[in-house]
Amino acid sequence: MLTLYDSAISGNAYKVRLLLSQLGIPFRRIEMNVDDGSTRAETFLKINRNGRVPTVMLADGTTLPESNAILFYFADRTPFWPETRLQQAQVLQWMFFEQYNHEPTIAVVRHWVAHLGRTEANEPALPGKVAGGYRALDVMEDHLGRHDYFVAGRYTIADIALYAYTHVAHEGGFDLSRYPAIKAWLARVAAQPGHIRITD
Amino acid sequence: MLTLYDSAISGNAYKVRLLLSQLGIPFRRIEMNVDDGSTRAETFLKINRNGRVPTVMLADGTTLPESNAILFYFADRTPFWPETRLQQAQVLQWMFFEQYNHEPTIAVVRHWVAHLGRTEANEPALPGKVAGGYRALDVMEDHLGRHDYFVAGRYTIADIALYAYTHVAHEGGFDLSRYPAIKAWLARVAAQPGHIRITD
Repeated sequence: MLTLYDSAISGNAYKVRLLLSQLGIPFRRIEMNVDDGSTRAETFLKINRNGRVPTVMLADGTTLPESNAILFYFADRTPFWPETRLQQAQVLQWMFFEQYNHEPTIAVVRHWVAHLGRTEANEPALPGKVAGGYRALDVMEDHLGRHDYFVAGRYTIADIALYAYTHVAHEGGFDLSRYPAIKAWLARVAAQPGHIRITD
Repeated sequence: MLTLYDSAISGNAYKVRLLLSQLGIPFRRIEMNVDDGSTRAETFLKINRNGRVPTVMLADGTTLPESNAILFYFADRTPFWPETRLQQAQVLQWMFFEQYNHEPTIAVVRHWVAHLGRTEANEPALPGKVAGGYRALDVMEDHLGRHDYFVAGRYTIADIALYAYTHVAHEGGFDLSRYPAIKAWLARVAAQPGHIRITD
């Protein structure tokens, strides 16, 4: 049985639950606390030396970290991963954009504001993170104003990767009302067969 | 002819030059200034809405940004991209690690220290970036103490992605003397056929 080292508050972990559910792949969840040091404990560092969830353990004991690498692993040779080399590169383009421009801003602001509570230590970096998050949303809005999905005209793991933290961006205080194309895309993603919520 | 929107000081752009050189794919370079706003100008935003180099323009005018997505595009079906789905996912795992944990720390510190010069505005964030860079190097050292290359026992685009900023980390003040496995791996990468230097 596949094991997912998971976190209920992590959008990165939700990506994996969402894809596995839509693919009908059974898995067991091990909930990790990402704030109390559990993911940095020696026992977990043997599973992921980088100390992060999500990480999956395959039936043979092989472990694989990094949410978007896990998405690729399960999506390959399914409709969630497109056929042509250019489309595959474009899926990766958006997934790298997500990890470099989107997650470190939108997800981090949500974590600071909604989970840790605003602290004096994080306050100086907050305005820059908020501005960076809006820049990422601007890039998405521009693309989604011309395309129903990120790549290949259909729902792929690029959409899953970007949906995870965009649909909860308001929890960090981001105002999506000025992003009509993003809002329409969020609704299209939520209407996909087998969709589950982050709280499921 | 393939066009690379390039930057001589960018390790991300160097990744692409290195792979293209090793594959023997001809390309022309357009040097962009990443500090004077050129990459945020309207003319360049039509090439990459996210305003970053490297970006490639294929012969048919299609543009593709994100260094690691570009590496995938050219490496697919070559020895630089391994055969099995698990090995491919592991290459992506290390490339996502590079963009999330390694580039935003090691590359940013190098840029601040060696190119922009230390400024009052960046100074508060510097110690955290330096500490994050050493954490990324620790993860690499642990892996390279047991493996000659990151994935599949041979040189792949995972090595190219991580070599780019690791081999110039000293320019940001990082001390690699306590990382013998990384230093041996740097030498193995530099000895690959067709290797070029970042300054070539």
